[in-house]
Amino acid sequence: MPRRKKIYEGKAKTLFEGPEPGTLVQYFKDDATAFNAEKRDVIEGKGVLNNILSEYFMQGLGDIGVPTHFIRRLNMREQLVRACEIIPLEIIVRNYAAGSISKRLGIDEGTRLPRPIIEYCYKDDALGDPLVSEEHIAAFGWASSQDMDDIVSLALRVNDFMSGVMRAVGIRLVDFKIEIGRVYDGDFQRLIVADEISPDSCRLWDMETDQKLDKDVFRRDLGSLTDAYSEVARRLGVLPKGAVPMAKPTLIN
Amino acid sequence: MPRRKKIYEGKAKTLFEGPEPGTLVQYFKDDATAFNAEKRDVIEGKGVLNNILSEYFMQGLGDIGVPTHFIRRLNMREQLVRACEIIPLEIIVRNYAAGSISKRLGIDEGTRLPRPIIEYCYKDDALGDPLVSEEHIAAFGWASSQDMDDIVSLALRVNDFMSGVMRAVGIRLVDFKIEIGRVYDGDFQRLIVADEISPDSCRLWDMETDQKLDKDVFRRDLGSLTDAYSEVARRLGVLPKGAVPMAKPTLIN
Ligand SMILES: Nc1ncnc2c1ncn2[C@@H]1O[C@H](COP(=O)(O)OP(=O)(O)O)[C@@H](O)[C@H]1O
Ligand SMILES: Nc1ncnc2c1ncn2[C@@H]1O[C@H](COP(=O)(O)OP(=O)(O)O)[C@@H](O)[C@H]1O
Ligand SMILES: [Mg+2]
Ligand SMILES: [Mg+2]
Repeated sequence: MPRRKKIYEGKAKTLFEGPEPGTLVQYFKDDATAFNAEKRDVIEGKGVLNNILSEYFMQGLGDIGVPTHFIRRLNMREQLVRACEIIPLEIIVRNYAAGSISKRLGIDEGTRLPRPIIEYCYKDDALGDPLVSEEHIAAFGWASSQDMDDIVSLALRVNDFMSGVMRAVGIRLVDFKIEIGRVYDGDFQRLIVADEISPDSCRLWDMETDQKLDKDVFRRDLGSLTDAYSEVARRLGVLPKGAVPMAKPTLIN
Repeated sequence: MPRRKKIYEGKAKTLFEGPEPGTLVQYFKDDATAFNAEKRDVIEGKGVLNNILSEYFMQGLGDIGVPTHFIRRLNMREQLVRACEIIPLEIIVRNYAAGSISKRLGIDEGTRLPRPIIEYCYKDDALGDPLVSEEHIAAFGWASSQDMDDIVSLALRVNDFMSGVMRAVGIRLVDFKIEIGRVYDGDFQRLIVADEISPDSCRLWDMETDQKLDKDVFRRDLGSLTDAYSEVARRLGVLPKGAVPMAKPTLIN
């Protein structure tokens, strides 16, 4: 079988041309980066876990009628997705303060926000993905006002679903980030959830212990990242057997 | 006459109790600060110029029906204003890119924006007045959605008026910042333009030469700040004679 044509190599994933027009193969790498790629490492097994977890979440969203790019998982590292035109925004939904909002607005990490807060960052690595408001998005035409309404609805539905999934396995969904893309059906355009939903793109805290089960384990050197992600997969019943190298059998950070 | 009670001493102004309830005396100091007060200096005559220029702009706004806190100027350094409950936001209106938006979004200084862009910063010196979006403002209750509608209208009216004033004297209004406060008329609340409108709170570029006639002269060490502010006052016909010490008779930076 001829090797597929590479379309884009990002920090955590590589996109290849898919078998049919309008499709892409998303390959999940083991590379971990943080702080706009200032910190980087290779975490053996991370790609496998994110591939399986993103499949799990995207499929669940599809089942409740939230459109996503996910078509099917191809193997341990790859999934087939619908190609879309990514809106150049990171859409962040926050239920509790953590990370940048805590620092910028002086709110202790873990504080319940008065309501879910949606933030937008302009996707531009060179600028460090700066926070922008709907005003900037409208003025620069990154998304239309119809798009923004749809983005808010999608983001809140993803938040509801993911909060439910996580709560069921004793995890608090502190915040998450999604990307949204445009697809064209004839003359119509629709927005779908794209990229990935995984512990790389969420903050997940154990509800009892506040233990971090997400990329903050890497950002803040809190222990083994694969142990943390495996714990999420284990609780959700999708831990791939034998596929993920486990340094330690239990989760100690 | 007994000395008035000091209510608040800020970076550029001091507020004293006014002669009647619901009024304040705003005293314009010569202190200049920038970069969240990391850079500071005393610029002899700045307070006099800002007092007179803020009077000029606020009075003009009042004349076109934009409500402001301005009542009357008392002397070269002080004006009587209506006391209000300041909304903890700096409301920035940008017509051209400059300063933080240029840096954050990678837009060359002086680039005409596709339309006026309104930004909000949360007024908190300790946090460095972080940029926030309407989402944060709503979630934390800093202003109601009715307030926000009124703030946008006020900000755009101030922009229209100030753009006109400046254009008439060969100056480009690049951007400006206002503060808005609540006043109560019986059971009703209204919003009014408060604080000051002056070269401290605007970016003003000569239309021919792009020469800066605003606080960037201080921020970026471009020459004499009083010369720059005096030039604005002179063009507007409000330069106080003899009151402002002039080191050099002409504007050279
Ligand atoms: N369905 C899709 N169609 C097109 N592009 C996508 C799709 N899903 C994700 N992408 C893009 O593919 C890239 C995924 O790789 P990643 O390693 O996350 O990149 P980055 O370093 O840019 O974050 C991202 O740029 C993302 O916007
Ligand atoms: N009409 C008003 N009523 C009450 N407070 C006001 C009014 N106008 C301005 N202020 C407040 O007075 C202070 C003005 O002083 P300034 O030196 O600008 O302070 P700061 O260092 O806080 O910017 C500001 O905090 C401003 O919000
Ligand atoms: Mg990415
Ligand atoms: Mg001030």
